[in-house]
Amino acid sequence: MEKNFTLSVDMLGSETNVVDILKGLNQSLLRNINFKFLLFGDEKEVSKKIKKYDKLNQVSKIIHCEDFISMDDKPTDILRQRKNTSMYLAINSVKEKLADAVLSFGNTGALMSLSTLHIKTLKEIKRPSIASIWPNLNGESIVLDLGANTKLDSRYLVDNAILGSSLASIIFKIDNPTIGLLNVGTEDIKGSEEIRLTSDKLKALTINSVMNYRGYVEGSDISHGKTNVVVTDGFTGNIALKTAEGTAKLFQSHLTDAFKSSVLSKIGYFLSSLAMKSVRERLDPRVHNCGILTGLNSLVIKCHGKSEFRGVSYAADIVYSLLFNDVNRKIKHYVAEIQSRAQY
Amino acid sequence: MEKNFTLSVDMLGSETNVVDILKGLNQSLLRNINFKFLLFGDEKEVSKKIKKYDKLNQVSKIIHCEDFISMDDKPTDILRQRKNTSMYLAINSVKEKLADAVLSFGNTGALMSLSTLHIKTLKEIKRPSIASIWPNLNGESIVLDLGANTKLDSRYLVDNAILGSSLASIIFKIDNPTIGLLNVGTEDIKGSEEIRLTSDKLKALTINSVMNYRGYVEGSDISHGKTNVVVTDGFTGNIALKTAEGTAKLFQSHLTDAFKSSVLSKIGYFLSSLAMKSVRERLDPRVHNCGILTGLNSLVIKCHGKSEFRGVSYAADIVYSLLFNDVNRKIKHYVAEIQSRAQY
Repeated sequence: MEKNFTLSVDMLGSETNVVDILKGLNQSLLRNINFKFLLFGDEKEVSKKIKKYDKLNQVSKIIHCEDFISMDDKPTDILRQRKNTSMYLAINSVKEKLADAVLSFGNTGALMSLSTLHIKTLKEIKRPSIASIWPNLNGESIVLDLGANTKLDSRYLVDNAILGSSLASIIFKIDNPTIGLLNVGTEDIKGSEEIRLTSDKLKALTINSVMNYRGYVEGSDISHGKTNVVVTDGFTGNIALKTAEGTAKLFQSHLTDAFKSSVLSKIGYFLSSLAMKSVRERLDPRVHNCGILTGLNSLVIKCHGKSEFRGVSYAADIVYSLLFNDVNRKIKHYVAEIQSRAQY
Repeated sequence: MEKNFTLSVDMLGSETNVVDILKGLNQSLLRNINFKFLLFGDEKEVSKKIKKYDKLNQVSKIIHCEDFISMDDKPTDILRQRKNTSMYLAINSVKEKLADAVLSFGNTGALMSLSTLHIKTLKEIKRPSIASIWPNLNGESIVLDLGANTKLDSRYLVDNAILGSSLASIIFKIDNPTIGLLNVGTEDIKGSEEIRLTSDKLKALTINSVMNYRGYVEGSDISHGKTNVVVTDGFTGNIALKTAEGTAKLFQSHLTDAFKSSVLSKIGYFLSSLAMKSVRERLDPRVHNCGILTGLNSLVIKCHGKSEFRGVSYAADIVYSLLFNDVNRKIKHYVAEIQSRAQY
């Protein structure tokens, strides 16, 4: 008997349209037939729009919500835990084992705090981490942490290596993914004491064949695809991610200006517009920009606040794949191996 | 009487061609007629190739060097201070007041260590910093530190604000450049204690009208051009810079692939190739990628290891402008203002 997986979807508190969410989930359902959904949103709107997606309609339950956490809500508001918000209820459904994972498009900080508080971290992992799938010259890599935990601490960084390695092995379907530690150079003496301590720990775990650590990587190595996993603290990771997004936008904007600059270039743009579209899609943050909150007892996925259906379906596919391959069992397995073999 | 400025150029130890260096210096000389040069390189080669640039030849003196610091030289080798290397001799010429500034294409770490050791920091500044001119949607901004000092320390960050503000006011010809502090969000509670302490100090200096601090900025705000100056520590700054470079390369590579993907897109590329060239030039790291070592008693500029003549001429123009406007007097003026008005 195939196992079913239930995904709770927080449909409020972002600029993502209900139709994009439903269309995306429906697309993913065609590939992942054992998916079920709990949809936390406006019942009237959702029940009307879901009719178009017959299959999705059959496996979804709508839970009516009016209140939501907005993008500007302050942490004090969030910690006051408004228990009628779509985000709170979606997270709570996982806590109460009515669902296996949460998908949200809303306030990342709120999602992080509420998930940590209610779903809690795996007992083997000190702190959860936000991972992202980053496009590179060879394909894609997992980069983490992107902002869950801004403290530089070797234990957290080793946890990130375990979490990232587990995600990469499932998402990219590879054994022993290569791991790099983000630093300002590749020589042994580079970086702070805490970074060097982390590197020593990861080296020891690699000698014991538990992980596949390849040493330091630099900022440019992320897009170059030097390793399958790039480990960093949440401060550096968040700034690297947003800098990359900003650079991509700058490039795009200059390109658009340039194409408008003459009649010839306008014709050129017209002729190459399909090719241009494919580049935009390959690098489109609306498709790729999903953050995987990992290290918790259940998976939580944060999609871009303005997602299109493709981004939703991409994120749902990833959730399914991680659930199907039991990512948390994989993480526990890594930790057990580590604890039996080396100091950690 | 116009003041002359002498620039010492370290011509060895990189992949930059002698011809590119000479052509670039010559172009800058046409705009900055009071420039003189000390050229540290292979006398035979340089004296032969400089003949083509009559004006440059008249104001340059070649100092023959054979030894150089390579890109792979280890810090221990560098600290052994090989006193016949082109880099050492160029730096020494500034120390001995034979020149006003140094331009190098070589090993950044070596340039940093040797400059700090021999040229020394201004007595008002604790540590030198590497600043770069970063293209953004509105024009350009100064981002620093990009790797001189990887320790997170509020005093160093305030120094960076002073140094960045001085550079921006001269290079962009603006009064009171706006300053942002790089963080993982713009809310007051974001980031580490040291970052928040820095923000408080910068706010106090802004109330006293010495600086124009605008609060936290995020990674994406760099390319968006939210402030004229972006202040960060050398660890974060270095990773942000290299991540941006990597992203730009990834974008470029995908674009090239896309244009080759069909006959139509190939024709499109041909028609829009001029426009594409202008984008590449606006974002070209070979033009923009010069690091300004600031906070030292004399200016030191590091250009990309594989610079073209345009990058060389751009860097030389910047040096001239900073020397002509006496950047170090500006820095001292800021510090004096700060010391007389607020705690620092």
